[in-house]
Amino acid sequence: MTSETGVLDISYLKARRKEIDILLDKYLPPVEKYPHRLHEAMRYSVMAGGKRIRPILAMTAYEACGGKNPDLINPASCALEIVHTYSLIHDDLPCMDDDDLRRGMPTLHKKFDEATAVLAGDALHVLAFQLAAESGSIEVVKEFSQAIGTNGMLGGQMADVEAEGKVIDLEKIQYIHAHKTGALLRASVRIGGILAGVSKAELGKISLYGERIGLAFQIIDDILDIEGEQEKLGKQVGSDCRNQKATYPGVVGIEKARTEAHQLIDEAIDVSRSLNGNGEKFILIARYIGQRDR
Amino acid sequence: MTSETGVLDISYLKARRKEIDILLDKYLPPVEKYPHRLHEAMRYSVMAGGKRIRPILAMTAYEACGGKNPDLINPASCALEIVHTYSLIHDDLPCMDDDDLRRGMPTLHKKFDEATAVLAGDALHVLAFQLAAESGSIEVVKEFSQAIGTNGMLGGQMADVEAEGKVIDLEKIQYIHAHKTGALLRASVRIGGILAGVSKAELGKISLYGERIGLAFQIIDDILDIEGEQEKLGKQVGSDCRNQKATYPGVVGIEKARTEAHQLIDEAIDVSRSLNGNGEKFILIARYIGQRDR
Repeated sequence: MTSETGVLDISYLKARRKEIDILLDKYLPPVEKYPHRLHEAMRYSVMAGGKRIRPILAMTAYEACGGKNPDLINPASCALEIVHTYSLIHDDLPCMDDDDLRRGMPTLHKKFDEATAVLAGDALHVLAFQLAAESGSIEVVKEFSQAIGTNGMLGGQMADVEAEGKVIDLEKIQYIHAHKTGALLRASVRIGGILAGVSKAELGKISLYGERIGLAFQIIDDILDIEGEQEKLGKQVGSDCRNQKATYPGVVGIEKARTEAHQLIDEAIDVSRSLNGNGEKFILIARYIGQRDR
Repeated sequence: MTSETGVLDISYLKARRKEIDILLDKYLPPVEKYPHRLHEAMRYSVMAGGKRIRPILAMTAYEACGGKNPDLINPASCALEIVHTYSLIHDDLPCMDDDDLRRGMPTLHKKFDEATAVLAGDALHVLAFQLAAESGSIEVVKEFSQAIGTNGMLGGQMADVEAEGKVIDLEKIQYIHAHKTGALLRASVRIGGILAGVSKAELGKISLYGERIGLAFQIIDDILDIEGEQEKLGKQVGSDCRNQKATYPGVVGIEKARTEAHQLIDEAIDVSRSLNGNGEKFILIARYIGQRDR
């Protein structure tokens, strides 16, 4: 997994990303189809790139658990990326984080307009459920809606909005991170497992893995907002501080945040080793999240 | 159905509305549960009242088609009302229609704030899918997502936004109405039929009924925005005109619009008479839509 020089071999992630980009292009409605502007806006945001970590997690979990049908896991995996994109579009709106830059390009409401950004976010939200339903599994649709509702992602977003400019404690920032980012990452591996029909015990382990990398992912995101390079990240650095956002380093300090992120990654790797299926790829993804600089 | 004095007996609709209000209260997350403000906002908009025409249509269709399990049709029916509410919340936003009044009360972004309105809309959107999934039918989830995506409701909303201030033709206004309002009303009856396992032929007739009342409903909405009483409607009249919105009377004139609405209602009644199940209630709903003044 790691070459002799210590550099992580991410060819698996690159290949998957390519595969996912092709699938997303296939699942998004064509611009030629009416209403053109709405379809154009949806594509603008989804096809702007990104790590595609959520669909990669779902596909990896599905295959590790013995799943064999790409026609079921592909739409479900892309649903996760599409819901992530919708959440970013609404998060970037002037009444929310008011961000101008995303993945090195103008945010959707800057490139188009606010009304189109609201509707394109809504349209991606529906499309995600449409694709989740294509998996043929009502359990997947349920898992999905739990992860992104007020018990999950939206609960975290609301808490994040409410925490702005306030002094918050460790418990609150953990709630925000576990819900705003963690819930969807956890659901990504779980959906792969559920669709492959994995045992309850194994699903429990997979969920634990998802929780650990989910929290680590967001802590590292916060650190990158302080120390990262704008060029690599494709978004403004320091925006959390400017917007008086609640962040992990803001609560525990940057060194402790870094230590905790690495500890979470180590725990995720330990869980990966205890899995029945091929844990190698889970380890790779955990290491990748631990090392990322964008 | 109509008493000797020609007044429509709507006790069935009133009883159903009461039943639906109790169900909605049960399905909405409690305010006591964190994040309180988000749950409060969701309840504010959903429990503000309304005709509950979409869940009534779904329940009526389900029972007329022989469906017997309230545990399946109840959540699916309420999902329709909840998605309707989310669409109104986002539609009322300053970047969209910028409305201050809805059902006689301040719109959600006026009562709370814009960020909360965006998130509460999103949260109701997820909740709707969660409830649709509780029907246990993946077909229902698919029908639902088709009706509210860019091929349905959102396509109509985008076209509506784009048409503002422009001269549009009959074809365009028909597209807007059939999609923005019609698609969800059509889906309401279809979901009842699908969940009851109705035959394809019967589902075709039900769909036709849904299309006719859907278009009539929106034409009458446009007429009420010109001629209605603000007090009864609970929203500002004349707002379409002020916002330079595309309306049916604006394209064909108010008299022709009225004639067409009545013709659509008559056609819906004709279809109701050809149904296997009890068409009486379908006729009542069509008549009610034709006569409504709010």
